[in-house]
Amino acid sequence: MTQPLVISIDAMGGDHGPSVVIPAVVRAAQALPADVRFLLHGDEPTLTPALARHAALRPRVEVRHAERVVAMDEKPAQALRRGKGTSMWNAVETVRESEAAAAVSAGNTGALMAISRLVLRMIPGVERPALVTNIPTPRGITTFLDVGANIDCDAARLVEFAIMGEAYHRAAHGAAKPTVGLLNVGAEDMKGHEEVREANRILREGKIDLNYHGFVEGDDITGGAVDVIVTDGFTGNVALKAMEGAAKFMSAELRGALTGGLMPTLGAVLARPALLKFRERISPPPAAPFLGLNGIVLKSHGGASARDFAQAIQLAVDLARSGFSAEIERNMRRLPDALAEPASGTTGDSPEAAGQTPAQGATE
Amino acid sequence: MTQPLVISIDAMGGDHGPSVVIPAVVRAAQALPADVRFLLHGDEPTLTPALARHAALRPRVEVRHAERVVAMDEKPAQALRRGKGTSMWNAVETVRESEAAAAVSAGNTGALMAISRLVLRMIPGVERPALVTNIPTPRGITTFLDVGANIDCDAARLVEFAIMGEAYHRAAHGAAKPTVGLLNVGAEDMKGHEEVREANRILREGKIDLNYHGFVEGDDITGGAVDVIVTDGFTGNVALKAMEGAAKFMSAELRGALTGGLMPTLGAVLARPALLKFRERISPPPAAPFLGLNGIVLKSHGGASARDFAQAIQLAVDLARSGFSAEIERNMRRLPDALAEPASGTTGDSPEAAGQTPAQGATE
Repeated sequence: MTQPLVISIDAMGGDHGPSVVIPAVVRAAQALPADVRFLLHGDEPTLTPALARHAALRPRVEVRHAERVVAMDEKPAQALRRGKGTSMWNAVETVRESEAAAAVSAGNTGALMAISRLVLRMIPGVERPALVTNIPTPRGITTFLDVGANIDCDAARLVEFAIMGEAYHRAAHGAAKPTVGLLNVGAEDMKGHEEVREANRILREGKIDLNYHGFVEGDDITGGAVDVIVTDGFTGNVALKAMEGAAKFMSAELRGALTGGLMPTLGAVLARPALLKFRERISPPPAAPFLGLNGIVLKSHGGASARDFAQAIQLAVDLARSGFSAEIERNMRRLPDALAEPASGTTGDSPEAAGQTPAQGATE
Repeated sequence: MTQPLVISIDAMGGDHGPSVVIPAVVRAAQALPADVRFLLHGDEPTLTPALARHAALRPRVEVRHAERVVAMDEKPAQALRRGKGTSMWNAVETVRESEAAAAVSAGNTGALMAISRLVLRMIPGVERPALVTNIPTPRGITTFLDVGANIDCDAARLVEFAIMGEAYHRAAHGAAKPTVGLLNVGAEDMKGHEEVREANRILREGKIDLNYHGFVEGDDITGGAVDVIVTDGFTGNVALKAMEGAAKFMSAELRGALTGGLMPTLGAVLARPALLKFRERISPPPAAPFLGLNGIVLKSHGGASARDFAQAIQLAVDLARSGFSAEIERNMRRLPDALAEPASGTTGDSPEAAGQTPAQGATE
């Protein structure tokens, strides 16, 4: 038997709003146990009639009217000032009030992060939330963070991401002792810029309870070399979008190749179920949770389909039922100690550091 | 009629050495006009017998004996000290001596860059070479740099890459006025870290003769939004490898999907020529030229096949026949002026800069 659970949903967020969110809730409800319930925040006169068609859902859904909606292009600062009473704000607030175990929104990412940070606050020791994503690999799933929330990251922040990403991976994917890698331009200790080299040193020291593997490279993200890959938000965002772009390009090229002429087209028809399975395997993940908050908030992408958004809801349930927030807190308590040690490499004047050229490239 | 042209080749470089290089030269010779000739540097007792089987090649090839070879794992500093007389060094040296119009090697990247920099020196105003690559897009080819040579890049270096990448793209792909984009985590001026925002400001001012488009994002690399995409060597290396990894993963998944069962397999057989064309379209580029040197040096990847290496040789010929080095020099002369201007945003205390949160994320 599972515990009853409530998931709060921003029904107005995303490019499509309720026209995607309602079918998504219907799908998720079918897949999830009956004791999972849903709080839908948004325009009641829109939501209630839309729900009326789904009788089976009625006992499991409650609509909470929200007057306003955060616009997709609203600046985070503006969303903070004017956000109170929006469907997004109310969804996050129910998590703080323990009415809901998690909140899901496909709305404005920056606004969702800013509101979540203000309303829920950060876990002690964590400075800002990190955005995490799941990448399919031949071995399973790689947890990849930060994918865009933190542009400038020092070594301490990278170590923070390692701690949070590892706990998240364990919670979301059930690995007992996930391996962690730090993204760099080469595997040797002298490679990369100062921040990654210093984070590598801290993680190697072993003061934080992590199964640390060392440096990994860009092709390891989909290669499955480690379970968790850590990088700054600039690199992570670019890498994630670059991979999404490459996948999109390849799919378009494949479609083009398989419709040019009779034989290829016939081949494509015969292989259709296999090609659909292929597309599903390589499709981008349905949602990215914010890590480091006192509460669970998931961001589904703005253009999410009902299927994507339903998967985001299911992921919210999985996270809510796991103890990953507690694990992050436990390991974060070791961070100050790991950073405060008379770190021989920190100042760059140690014997090892002195022998290194600063900022060695991928090519040296 | 084309001018006679000599290409110098490091015949010992790469994971496979002469066993790939010789067949590559045979291929390239067939595809190129008869007035293109080849200088092969390496172990004469190995090379001459291997060439004996290719009678048609004899009048177009000269072997230059080199006692030694730069090891694939040799440190650049070591390669500089001990490099003289290696096949790689000799190949680059013939470019300085104007015996050859370009050098091609599949050897150790860091060593090749260090040797090229020492032997050929940089174009006035350029600090270090940049590594450039060609990415296929639905619209054609995107020139992408730096993909790993320069890890820490300030705004001036990014502007330098823009100048060199634009000239390269024109030379290699014949576009009259290529568009240039700066890689970032969002399109708005306030996005990204200080270096990209400052480079954006300099390029926007228009003091350098470039068709500057503004910020682009990771998915634009394969999207074809602009002709040239500029980033620092850390981000570029990670993004390139991430895309290669994604492409490899997708190919493996596709192969798996199309061999699982009778119908998919039959479909794959019928679609085979189309699938091969697809693979060719998405395959990684055969070579990355170093930009900013007084001379043309191309790095083919270490695991290059004979076909890849032959394409690298053909690219060397294209570059040698274009005037891109002169164009880089011309625009580099404008760089000091563009940087020296009382740049209002440089110090971060201007009215506009003061209103901005530093280092805004992708999500704000």
